[in-house]
This record gives sequence, structure tokens and C-alpha cells, in this order.
Amino acid sequence: MKLWDKGTSVNSLIENFTVGKDREMDLYLAKFDVLGSIAHAKMLQSINLLTKDELAELQTGLVQIYQVIEKGDFSIEAGVEDVHSQVELMLTQKLGDTGKKIHSGRSRNDQVLLDLKLFTRSEIQNLVISVCELFDKLLTKAITNREYLMPGYTHLQVAMPSSFGLWFGAYAESLVDDLVLLKAAYQITNQNPLGSAAGYGSSFPLDRQMTTDLLGFESMNYNVIYAQMGRGKMEKTVAFALSSIAATISKFAFDVCLFMSQNFGFVSLPDELTTGSSIMPHKKNPDVFELVRSHCNKIQAIPYQISLMTNNLPSGYFRDLQILKEVFLPAFQELHDCISIAGFAIDNMTVNTNVMADERYKYAYSVEDVNKLVMLGVPFRDAYKQVGTEINSGTYEPSREINHTHAGSIGNLCLDEIAEKMVVVVEGYDFERIEKAYAELLG
Amino acid sequence: MKLWDKGTSVNSLIENFTVGKDREMDLYLAKFDVLGSIAHAKMLQSINLLTKDELAELQTGLVQIYQVIEKGDFSIEAGVEDVHSQVELMLTQKLGDTGKKIHSGRSRNDQVLLDLKLFTRSEIQNLVISVCELFDKLLTKAITNREYLMPGYTHLQVAMPSSFGLWFGAYAESLVDDLVLLKAAYQITNQNPLGSAAGYGSSFPLDRQMTTDLLGFESMNYNVIYAQMGRGKMEKTVAFALSSIAATISKFAFDVCLFMSQNFGFVSLPDELTTGSSIMPHKKNPDVFELVRSHCNKIQAIPYQISLMTNNLPSGYFRDLQILKEVFLPAFQELHDCISIAGFAIDNMTVNTNVMADERYKYAYSVEDVNKLVMLGVPFRDAYKQVGTEINSGTYEPSREINHTHAGSIGNLCLDEIAEKMVVVVEGYDFERIEKAYAELLG
Amino acid sequence: MKLWDKGTSVNSLIENFTVGKDREMDLYLAKFDVLGSIAHAKMLQSINLLTKDELAELQTGLVQIYQVIEKGDFSIEAGVEDVHSQVELMLTQKLGDTGKKIHSGRSRNDQVLLDLKLFTRSEIQNLVISVCELFDKLLTKAITNREYLMPGYTHLQVAMPSSFGLWFGAYAESLVDDLVLLKAAYQITNQNPLGSAAGYGSSFPLDRQMTTDLLGFESMNYNVIYAQMGRGKMEKTVAFALSSIAATISKFAFDVCLFMSQNFGFVSLPDELTTGSSIMPHKKNPDVFELVRSHCNKIQAIPYQISLMTNNLPSGYFRDLQILKEVFLPAFQELHDCISIAGFAIDNMTVNTNVMADERYKYAYSVEDVNKLVMLGVPFRDAYKQVGTEINSGTYEPSREINHTHAGSIGNLCLDEIAEKMVVVVEGYDFERIEKAYAELLG
Amino acid sequence: MKLWDKGTSVNSLIENFTVGKDREMDLYLAKFDVLGSIAHAKMLQSINLLTKDELAELQTGLVQIYQVIEKGDFSIEAGVEDVHSQVELMLTQKLGDTGKKIHSGRSRNDQVLLDLKLFTRSEIQNLVISVCELFDKLLTKAITNREYLMPGYTHLQVAMPSSFGLWFGAYAESLVDDLVLLKAAYQITNQNPLGSAAGYGSSFPLDRQMTTDLLGFESMNYNVIYAQMGRGKMEKTVAFALSSIAATISKFAFDVCLFMSQNFGFVSLPDELTTGSSIMPHKKNPDVFELVRSHCNKIQAIPYQISLMTNNLPSGYFRDLQILKEVFLPAFQELHDCISIAGFAIDNMTVNTNVMADERYKYAYSVEDVNKLVMLGVPFRDAYKQVGTEINSGTYEPSREINHTHAGSIGNLCLDEIAEKMVVVVEGYDFERIEKAYAELLG
Repeated sequence: MKLWDKGTSVNSLIENFTVGKDREMDLYLAKFDVLGSIAHAKMLQSINLLTKDELAELQTGLVQIYQVIEKGDFSIEAGVEDVHSQVELMLTQKLGDTGKKIHSGRSRNDQVLLDLKLFTRSEIQNLVISVCELFDKLLTKAITNREYLMPGYTHLQVAMPSSFGLWFGAYAESLVDDLVLLKAAYQITNQNPLGSAAGYGSSFPLDRQMTTDLLGFESMNYNVIYAQMGRGKMEKTVAFALSSIAATISKFAFDVCLFMSQNFGFVSLPDELTTGSSIMPHKKNPDVFELVRSHCNKIQAIPYQISLMTNNLPSGYFRDLQILKEVFLPAFQELHDCISIAGFAIDNMTVNTNVMADERYKYAYSVEDVNKLVMLGVPFRDAYKQVGTEINSGTYEPSREINHTHAGSIGNLCLDEIAEKMVVVVEGYDFERIEKAYAELLG
Repeated sequence: MKLWDKGTSVNSLIENFTVGKDREMDLYLAKFDVLGSIAHAKMLQSINLLTKDELAELQTGLVQIYQVIEKGDFSIEAGVEDVHSQVELMLTQKLGDTGKKIHSGRSRNDQVLLDLKLFTRSEIQNLVISVCELFDKLLTKAITNREYLMPGYTHLQVAMPSSFGLWFGAYAESLVDDLVLLKAAYQITNQNPLGSAAGYGSSFPLDRQMTTDLLGFESMNYNVIYAQMGRGKMEKTVAFALSSIAATISKFAFDVCLFMSQNFGFVSLPDELTTGSSIMPHKKNPDVFELVRSHCNKIQAIPYQISLMTNNLPSGYFRDLQILKEVFLPAFQELHDCISIAGFAIDNMTVNTNVMADERYKYAYSVEDVNKLVMLGVPFRDAYKQVGTEINSGTYEPSREINHTHAGSIGNLCLDEIAEKMVVVVEGYDFERIEKAYAELLG
Repeated sequence: MKLWDKGTSVNSLIENFTVGKDREMDLYLAKFDVLGSIAHAKMLQSINLLTKDELAELQTGLVQIYQVIEKGDFSIEAGVEDVHSQVELMLTQKLGDTGKKIHSGRSRNDQVLLDLKLFTRSEIQNLVISVCELFDKLLTKAITNREYLMPGYTHLQVAMPSSFGLWFGAYAESLVDDLVLLKAAYQITNQNPLGSAAGYGSSFPLDRQMTTDLLGFESMNYNVIYAQMGRGKMEKTVAFALSSIAATISKFAFDVCLFMSQNFGFVSLPDELTTGSSIMPHKKNPDVFELVRSHCNKIQAIPYQISLMTNNLPSGYFRDLQILKEVFLPAFQELHDCISIAGFAIDNMTVNTNVMADERYKYAYSVEDVNKLVMLGVPFRDAYKQVGTEINSGTYEPSREINHTHAGSIGNLCLDEIAEKMVVVVEGYDFERIEKAYAELLG
Repeated sequence: MKLWDKGTSVNSLIENFTVGKDREMDLYLAKFDVLGSIAHAKMLQSINLLTKDELAELQTGLVQIYQVIEKGDFSIEAGVEDVHSQVELMLTQKLGDTGKKIHSGRSRNDQVLLDLKLFTRSEIQNLVISVCELFDKLLTKAITNREYLMPGYTHLQVAMPSSFGLWFGAYAESLVDDLVLLKAAYQITNQNPLGSAAGYGSSFPLDRQMTTDLLGFESMNYNVIYAQMGRGKMEKTVAFALSSIAATISKFAFDVCLFMSQNFGFVSLPDELTTGSSIMPHKKNPDVFELVRSHCNKIQAIPYQISLMTNNLPSGYFRDLQILKEVFLPAFQELHDCISIAGFAIDNMTVNTNVMADERYKYAYSVEDVNKLVMLGVPFRDAYKQVGTEINSGTYEPSREINHTHAGSIGNLCLDEIAEKMVVVVEGYDFERIEKAYAELLG
């Protein structure tokens, strides 16, 4: 069953190829297809393209389908090419001609645009929650370990004293900026495309503001050509924001893998969180962080996949866009799994509280000693030369006293300020508007 | 002259290789290095690492260097490895020991972080102005041509009526979302990294809030490790925002190149804006839009270049980051040139006001006629089949009347609403804070 | 069951995360894991790490498992983490201690390296066959349509006469170069990594030349560190070769989608190979080629995915590499499906034999007329100006006679020469060596 | 001066934008433009489009221009848009009408295609020489340090004994495979595009085999549409081969940066090859390898840049291709510089010959001890458990005897076999054919 059936049968090879993974991918969208259809039906009634009775029937039917989906009992039947067809088929089987009427004033193009946006909004909400949990775990670790020093590196050379508090806190603050970016992606997503039909609008007097409000959108993609152009652009923008989160986690994972090496020994995981080797009995490998890193690096490639698939296409819909679903829809779960397992491992991570005792880190204190001379009035360049000479002649012995007090330093981690930045960012998302809208829609 | 001179000469092959293009690249940063130094000096005085007299001398010296830069007379001398060394050299030549003191409490690492952020903020401001000009030109074209229809395509197949007003307006609205994304990148940029030193802070009691305010930053990268981690991350985020603008322009350029083909003939450029062929005398080629497209596609690769250069590096500074300058700094001018020449060509573009008269576009009206039946009460699917049958039997004749009235459609372009969205976005940037801060610094 | 079981249970969250999609992905490798194990067992016996009887038992057991796999009855049980463990488990269940002995002198690291190489060799062979079939279809179309002219474009502007023979032939020749590149990827793949163990070799006196010969490899990755380094490098190299084929097909698909537009009308597909629209009854869309293009563009991103996942990792094995399987293994089928459906559609494609009659293409002949003047002795630049003047004054009338005779031109397509290049390339692959080796192994 | 001047002046903004960096970029191509022109002129005479006297004049003129270029005195004048125009201008200034005649039977499209291929062939030859030098340095280091053990890592966990000989040798063997790939790129490049004119051939009876032979090409891009399609495809393919070399060097550089960390201390560079810090007097940073890594990572992005700029363009020339020059032409020098400075640093690198004495590496020997038990007849899994138990109970003491004898292992590096593979690969390039051809052309 195809929405566009013309009486000519489509070659089965072609049909299989063109349907592709849509039956699987569209399951991500099912719930949202129904929500969009309810809003569309309400709007059609408001412009007299449906009677009140028809609307009531449709709404009941759609809510029932919604419940089937929520229970996990929804599937797209063989011979039905996508979620839109399946939902319409179920309605038509139940309501006859009334079921057919819901397709007035829209095209599958704006329907899938809408579904993708509703899905993405919802996944962004889940992601924000996940990221905040990870943020809290990192802050907790930063607080717990704020007294413990570790060497700080530049060029992977021992440079200056750092601390575990500083290290955990850095990744927490990184997540704040990631959510700033994600919020822009969210704002770009959170605009209603419904009513753009096949990308050139409709001769029906659609009330697009009404569906915008019913679905809890912040605004509208006004221009109907631009609404269509948003396909691919939204995915790429959101994927880039995902990749920013992924980059933060990947970098943290790299640090952990490095710091778990016997050559560093800064952090460790309990045995049951590591894995072994088939020929090396002593190995306790940080596989979990290697896999987190690899998944996060794979996620970072998604914007480039999307670019290659959508770049240099003129305006207007192309079927190419279908394959974006395979690339984009599963990414949220993949990232969520990484965040979740990384958080679990962080909770279980132990830091080596006595790292700095190792002689090889003593030169890390040299800048401190330069600065002490400066505080006594020696010009910086001269102080630098004096300590350098001691080091070169082997007479240098560090004081090992650290007194960093400025904002964001070892002795003043500014975790409250960072937490406050996060609160402000997260408040800007305004997810409640959506929840309220959906509650009303499902009535 | 190197800031870190230890008395051992560096091999000249190594020196040439490591300096690389820095003497050229750092010219982008010179002005900002001086501004940052003035703020740093003021802060040093406030914590008594400089006397008031020393500060006065330094400020005078730095303002003079700023003026040299503004006049275009600044250069980095052979033997001086970067802009930071050159500025300090000039100060020291003039002020002796006082010149040396300005390096207290900072490292080249946070100095270059700061310079890059100040440069980027400034370039973002220029870019927002450029984009707004292009936006206005597109809106103007949309208004002027709002009456003229053109075919709308899906799958590059003639689909439905569209209009030139709709087409130009789509790209205008696209730029609004691009500036939403750019604003997030701006917000991420607009946080003060100064005081992070080599990435682990300083034992001096630096007043980081003071430099944050003096330089007009909205906030601070509190955590000093995160401040350092921002290198590469800021560039990638901003580059992605640039690539979003570039993608909009590239897509527009693709449309123009297609629509200027003799097979479309929708738009044309005056002869003096086209180029010819060395063997085909009749050619009038849209080279300008092909080159715009190509530059914009090249710009879209920048985030990927940055990813490859920075991914899988652990935390802490690496010299790898230097090469990001070559990739990132010139991108603003390249994009600016594309925006500017595209705007110029758009101003000079003529649309074909009689496109739809061509018989081959008559089926574009079929949906209109389906919808008219629906408005008379025929269920959509049945109306669709009736018109389909007429088309297949060759009896279809379109009415050619278009009455699209809903928001964002041919008859209701919502250009005011789109313009209003743009106003709101641009107001959010708050560039005035920066201008005021700089005026005081140089005051 | 884990090969590296140490007695400590691994946390189940961690276990689920680390196993990931391996149970699914490893099915691609099962057959090859068995083949590699047979070769390894024979070699172990030759250096007296197995008795002849043990070898006989193992060989029988492995051949039985091979048959299970060939029948499609093989699966990786819940609780077994990968194909290597599953095969060893099945052997051990049957043979007890003898089953365990097969793991001597190898690690999962070189085992999976080997499996991936054997799988890839096999898929490359399938791909070469597929590509040759497509090549033949393109050549056939080129021959059949060699008389029919079409306009040739530069800058999407009508430029000079071209022909359908030329157009189809171009893509055939493109595939030849694609197989040249694939052959280099094949040669890099076709080197034995077995014996590299965990990447540092083994203290057993392994006979690596013996397994090289038994498995039909052309050569060996001698250095054991390099053998391990090949993971990721092989995938990236092969993926780039796949992406070259994909780029050829994607470009062809783009041409077809353009040429099927009503604005060109150069080629068409029968109705049953096109799809329709849910609101536009007249549409006959080239979805199949749009999807081919999209899949092929997605495939072109694979090398970049792999780069992001493997770049900036030092030498030595990392678990990150596991996720490459998800990116790499399914790519062959995806590309194969594109080649196959494109070939099917090409077979059914009709060309418009009378394109050039359209007046709008008459300037395409202008270069011909310039050249005729040159043949009469007029300097090229003067001839060019004369015809240009006629065109500008509207007096130009083309002769419409085409007489292109040089190699590779409309009148002399050189299809035999192109076919001969293909024969030479394909002969270089030498797949027979592998088939012979496998027959003996399973013998 | 433009080859295609039509009498209408082009707007100066447009002209500046469209010329872009061509005057700079085309200098890379000047020498090759002249060589191609000589071959083209000889061919034109052979088909009577030039008289023998005209050919003699042209040849003399072109050889003179070649000498000007060789001396470094060639430049593209302001007002001349590219190298092709400049060369033709110089000829015409000297020879009048005869100078103009050289443009018969070719277009700038095939001229630049040819120039790019000749340039690329030449640069590939230089690169092969460079890579072989680096290969020799690595082999030398492998031989010199073949006795010295180092720990081998998996998951960055100490795993098994490795050796410096093994480590250096791995990168040498990696370069062999890189040159296998480069050879395929070379083979794809080394086919003559001349005669394809603007991409649709010519009505002149061009003798393309003659120019193929004169220019020392191995074969021809027969199909003229495919010849044009090669633009972008050649660059991408060669760039991928460059990126394979770059990936090898980048990985080596990563290892070096890691192994120079105080946490490893495996290798070191003399002071004059390291750089210092502006605030940390004790630092001796491996900047040279960080910059090598960064440049090599940047190079790895080139294929993606090219993909974004050329993907989804239909067949036929587009001006977009011009910008590829900026991305592609300078890459050879950038890679060459990396290879050269890396080679220099390798020559000066010292290895720590006593690494393994450190207690923390003792578990690296555990596999050895497992294997010894196996050689005594213990099944592998049982031996593995026995040693594992010793390690867990703290009773494990390694024997520290290493006896790896198989091909490619510590005791048997197979450097001769690797060198032999390299010889075979390099012989396949056959650069002599080109040198001979050029000598005759200029003769």
C-alpha cells in the first residue's frame, strides 16, 4: 500500500531497494507521526476541511494508535512502505473515507519533516538530561578529589602541578558549552514545518500558527521552500551539536586510557570494569573507555556523512534524504549509551592520591619557584633564567608548596560558577511547553 | 628572539619548520595581542605586580604599537618567532625591564588563546554585518519578484507552482537560522581564557574577573584546563557555524547555476558578470556562482580538517594547534568575499517573469486542481485519482489560477515575520559591550 | 565464555556495552575464522605444537563448523562474546583439551586481523564481478546508442555536441580506473598478518610462510607491529577504493536524475521503475537513482569515519578498532546493491534519440563551425571572433554536421581499447590462487 | 588578456573574484604548460594544422619560455588571468599569428587537465624519492637498534616485550604499502587527457596517441567525457595516497611524542632539536614531531575537501574545479617538508637502551612464560591460568629471556624482505619513460 498508488505496479526489485530500511527506521518516528496527525486534524477542522464529528473519530483513532505504539505493539506491515502509510492504513481500515481525509493539505514531505523534528526535540530533551547527570558526576568527582595534585602536561611533557579536581572540573565545564551549542540546534529544530506540503505550500487556507501552537513549537519555518530545505540542515546541525558532546567525552576517554597506563597510574577502575587479554594474564584493560572513545569518534563523523549526502543538491525534495534516517536516528541512542556507561565508570573510578611523590614530577614545580622570585620583585625573564640554570646544573629542589588562588585554579575551582552556567543554559530549553502541548493533544 | 630562550641554539632546519607560517598568520592577531596585553597590564597593576608608573609606561607603549598596527606598518621581524615575541621585543627595546614584566602571570598559551578569541569575536561581528546585508538583498528581491511564478520541483521533476518571491525568501530565512547557530558559537567564544597560563593556572593572585570585564567578555572559561581545551574546540565550533552559512550560499549558488542553464532560463546575469569560453563563442557562464559554490564547499570542510588535527589528543597543550591558524584564520575573509560577491550578483540578477507560460510546466498545476475538488467535498484520495486519470488520458487542462494564502506560501510570504526573526537574533549578539570595552582600554 | 576469563566476573553493564554489536558483526567473519584456524592448526602441527592426530581431529571439527556456517545455521550464543570464542567453544565441547590447543601461538588480535583480511579479499572478488557486469551494461548501452547525439554541457551551459555513446562510455572507463585503485587496496590487503599475535609476535617458532601459502596470500606483513597497524589502515584503504566506485556511480546517478527532468528529457525509465507522489498525480520520479546516489555518497564518507576513529592513536592494539566493523563490514553489500540496481535500471533505460532537434541546442554547433574555418586556414582566434559575431547578431545558423574522428570522440568511442584496459586490470587480481588454497584447506 | 575575450568588459569585482589565486597557483603548472604545448604543436603539424616552419618557430619560442621558467623569471602579468593565457601572450608577442595557432584543437579545459597531470606525475616522482630516503633511515635505525628491547603495549597497557628494531621497522614496512597505493594513483594519473578539449572532443583529426607518446604517458583517457571527469577524481585519488603516507608519518610522530614524555623516556632528541617554554625552564618539547603530526593530519583532510567540492556535480566542466588547485597543489611540498624534517630528526634520535630494567615492565614477560609451559606440553588455557595465578598472588618473577625467531619478530626482523618489497614497488613506477620523453620534447 502506497500513498501515491497510480495503478501501475512498481517493479519488486525497485520497490525493495527504495523501501530499504524505512520500515525499521520509521519506528523511531511512529509516535510523532500520530501526534502530528492529531494536530493536523484539529487544524483541518478549524478551516472546515473536516467536520467536528470527523475530527472526533480521527482523534479517537489516532489516540488508540498512539497507545499501541506506547505499548510497543506497533509495526509496519510488509507491503506498507512507511510509517505514514501504516498509520493512514490503520485509520482507513477503521474509519473508511474519514481516514483518507487526514491527508488533505499535507504531503509526505512535510509529514516526515515534522516527524523528524518532533523526534529530534524529544531526543534532545533526553540527551540534556543525560548530559546533566554526567555533569553532576564530574562535579562530584571534582569536589571529592580537589585536594589531590597530579602533574599537568604540555606537549606530553611534565609541566606544572595540576589536580584531579581541576581535571574532572574541566570536562564538566566543557559539557556546559556543548549544551550551549545543542541549544542553538534545538532552537533551529523547534520550528514548525507543517503546511509546507511538498515544499511549495498548499492552496488550502491552512492555519499554520495553529499547528505551531498545538505542537508546542517555539516558532515556524515560515517560507515553505525553506521548511523543506531544513531537511538535512536540521540533521547536520543537530549532529554537529552531538559531535561536540561526543568530542568532550572522547577526549576524557583518551585521558583515562592514558592515565590508566602503567606509565602514568593516575586513575584506576575496579577489576570488574576492566577486561583481560587472551594471552596476557596480567592485563586489566580500559576497554570501556576505548569503546566510548571509538563510538564518540564515529559520532563525530555524522555531520560529514550528512554533508556528503546533501551537499550540492539544489533546492526541492530529493529521495536522497531518506538515507539520512539511517545515519541520524540511531545516533542519539549511541551517544546516550556512551554517556551512561562513562558516567557509571566515573562513579567507580579511583584516583591515585599520591602521584606527585614520584621524583620524576619534581620539575613541575619550577614555574612556582620562578613566580615566587617575581613576587619578590625579580623581573620575570630573569627569574626564569635563574631557575633554568639551577635545573640545568642539577641543583634545583622544589618547595612543593602550591598556592593557586585565582578563579578556576587548583585552589579555587569555581565549581559553583560552572554549575550556575549550566543551570542558565538548561533553563533556556523550555521543554515544559512541549509537554504541556502534548498532554493537551492527547487529551 | 624567543620568549623561552635557554641559551642553546635551536637547529635552523628545525626552527624554520617550527616557525612555519606563523609570521604571516600572526598578523591577523597583532591588534588583539596588544589589546589583551593592555588588559593584562592593568590587572597586574591591580595586584601589585606592576607599579602605577610601570603600567602607565606600558600602556603608552602598547597604544603606540596598536597605532602602528592600525596603520598597517607592523611586521614580525626575521628571527622573531611570533607576534607575542615581536610585541614584547618592541616594548623591551623601548622600556627595558618594564617591558619584560608584562609576561608575568601569563604564558604564550593563554596569550594566543586570548588573541584567537578576540580576533574571532571581531570577525564574527564583521560576518554578522555581511550576512545581514545579503539577507536584505534577498528580501528585496523576494518583494520585487513576489508576483512572478516559477515551477517548483521535487526529484528535479516539475511538481507544483512556486514563485521567485518564495525562492529568494527561502534563502533569506535560511540565513536567520545560520545566525542562530553562529550566535551559539559566538557565546562559546566570548569567554575569557586569560589567566589559564599554560593550562594549569598560576600561583599569582590574578584577577581574572577584571580582565574579563576589561575585554568586554560575557563570561569566563573558569577552569584553566578547560580554557586550554577550548583551543581547537572554539575553532571547530565557529567553523561549523561558518560552514552553515556557507552551505546556504552554496545551495543558492547551485540553484542559480541550474536556473541559468538554457534548459531552465529562469534567471540571468548581465554580460559583464559572466565569463566566456576559449572555444565556444556563445557561452555566458555563471562562473561567479560556481566559484562561490566551490569556496563555500571548501569552507564546509574546515570543521573536518580541525577534527582530524585535534581529535584523539589528550588534554593539555600541543604544538599541533599552531597549524589550526592556517586553516581557520583566513576562512572569515574567504566567506566574506563569497557573501559580498554573491550579494553583488544578486543585485544584478534578472528573473524570467514569464516562465510558466511554457507548456511543459502545465502539470505543475495538478495539485491545485486536486485541492479544488477536495474543497468541494471530494475525499483527497479520490480527487487525486480523478486528476491522475485526466493526466494519463491526456485530457488534463490546468486552470492556472493560484490562490495560496497560508503563512509562508506564494501569496503570503511572511517576509516581515522573517525579518523580525532576524532582528531578534542579531540583537542577541550585543557587540556594543565589546566596542565600549575597547574604547576604554585604548582610552 | 571469554577467552581471557580470569575468574573475576565482569560487570554486566560493561559487558553488554563492550560486546556491543559484535555478535552480529562477527557473523560476517565466521567462515573466515574457520579457514584461518585450519591453516593455523596445520602450521602448529608442522612445528610440533600439535600431534598429527590432534590436527586430524581439529581439521575434522573445523570443517564441520564450516559446513554449519555455509548452511546458515551458525550463530554466536548469548554469553559468548565473539566469533573466535564461539568457534573455540564448539571445538572444545567436541574435542576437550585438543580444542583448547588451537589458540597456541596466536592472539585474538591477529585472529581478527586475519579474519578481516580473508573477508575483505572475498568481498573484493565479489565486487570486481559486480563492477564488471555494470561495465558490460554500460558498454552495451554505449554501442547501442553510439549514433544518437545529445548536447554536451560546460558550466551547465549548452556547449558542444556530445552523444549517448560517449556518455555511457565515460562511466565505463571510469570503472576501469576504479578497479585499478581497488587492486592496490587488494594488494595491501592480500598479505598475511597471522603470527603477529598481540602485535609483538610470539616466542613459538611459528612458520608464517606456511600459513601465508596455505591461505593463498600473495605476501606477508612481515613486521609484527606493522601487521597490527594494518588494522584500520586496510579498512581505510579499501573503503577509499569502494568510495571511488561509489563516486562513479553517484555521478552517473546525478546525471540520470538531471537528464530525466522535464527540462532535459534525455533519458527515461519505464513506469514500473519510477515512483509517484502522494499529492502530485503526474510525477514519475527517479527515486531509484536518487537512492543509489545517496547510498553511494554515504559510502564515500566511510574513509573519513575510519580516519576519525583511528587517527592519533599510537601504535599497538586498542579496543577502538572493534567499532570499525560496524562501519566497514556492511559497506560491501550496500555498494553491491547500488551497483546491481543501477545495472538493472540502465538495462531498462531509454534514450531520447531526437534531442538535438530542439532549437535551444543549436549553438552547441558553434565550435564545429569555428573549427571548419580553421581547417580553411583562418587563425583560431579570428575564426572564434567571426562565429561569435554571427551569434551575437542573430545570424548564426549551424551546419549540424558532426565529424569527430579522433580517439575517444563521438565517431570513435574506443570501446575496444577501454574494454582491453579492463581485461588487463582484472587479470591482475589473481583470485584463482585463493580459490585453490581454500579448496586444499577444506579438502 | 583573456583567451575568450568577447569585446564586453567583465566587471572588475567579478574579474578579481574569478581570477582568485590563479596567478599564484598557476606558477606550479607553468613548466608543464609549456611541455604540453610543445607536444600539442608537434601533433598539430603532423595533421597539417601547422606548417613545419610554424612548428619550428613555436618550438623555439616555447623552449625559450621553458628556460625562463627554469630560471625562476616567469610570472603571470596583472591583467592576464592564467598561465595558459600568459604563455600564449608571450608566444603571440613574439610570433604574431603563428602564436595564436597553437590553441587549435584544444581548450583550456584539456590544457589544465594536462598541466595538472604532468605536474602531479612529477611531484609523485619527487615524493617517491623522499619516501625512499625516509624508508632507508628507518631501516638503518631498525638495524642499529635491533638488540634493544622496549615494552610493547596493547590498550596502552604494558603487554609484551617489543624492540626498537621492531618499532622502527614497522614504519618502514608501512611506507611500502603507502607506495603501493601511490602507484595506483600514479597509474590513474599517467593517462593522457589532451584532445578531450572542453570535454566533448574536437572536430579536428587529432592524433591523441602521438601526444600520449610524446609526453611519455603510459596510456590515454580515451573517452573525452571521462577525461574531463578525471579532474577532481585524479586529485582526490592522489590526495588519498598522500594521506596514506601522511597517516604513517603522523602515527610515528604520535609514538615519538608519547615516548619522549618523561613517563616513558624511550627516545630523546638532542637539545637543539627541541624547543622550550616561555614559563617552564625545564621543558624540552618535541615540537617538531607535533608539527609533523599536525601537518600530516591536515593533509589527511584533503580528500574530504575535494569530495565536498566535487561531489554531486553532474558530468561536464564546472569552474568549481579551479579552487581544487589551492587545496591540492601545495600539498606535495607540505608533505615533503614533513618527510624531510622527520628524517632529519630520526637521524638524530637516541633510544634508551635500558628501558626494560624498570620493574614496572616485568609483567611484559608473562606471555613468554606461558608459552614456555605450552612448549612443555601444558594446554594453552591452563598455562595461561597458572601464570595468571602467580601474577595475582605476587609470586611471579619473569625469566627475561627472549627468543623470538619467527619471521617479522624481534629476533628476525626480515628487513631484507621488507627492503625487497620496496624495490619491487618502486621499480613499477617507470619514471624513466617520462624523463626520456621530456628530453626529446625539449631537445
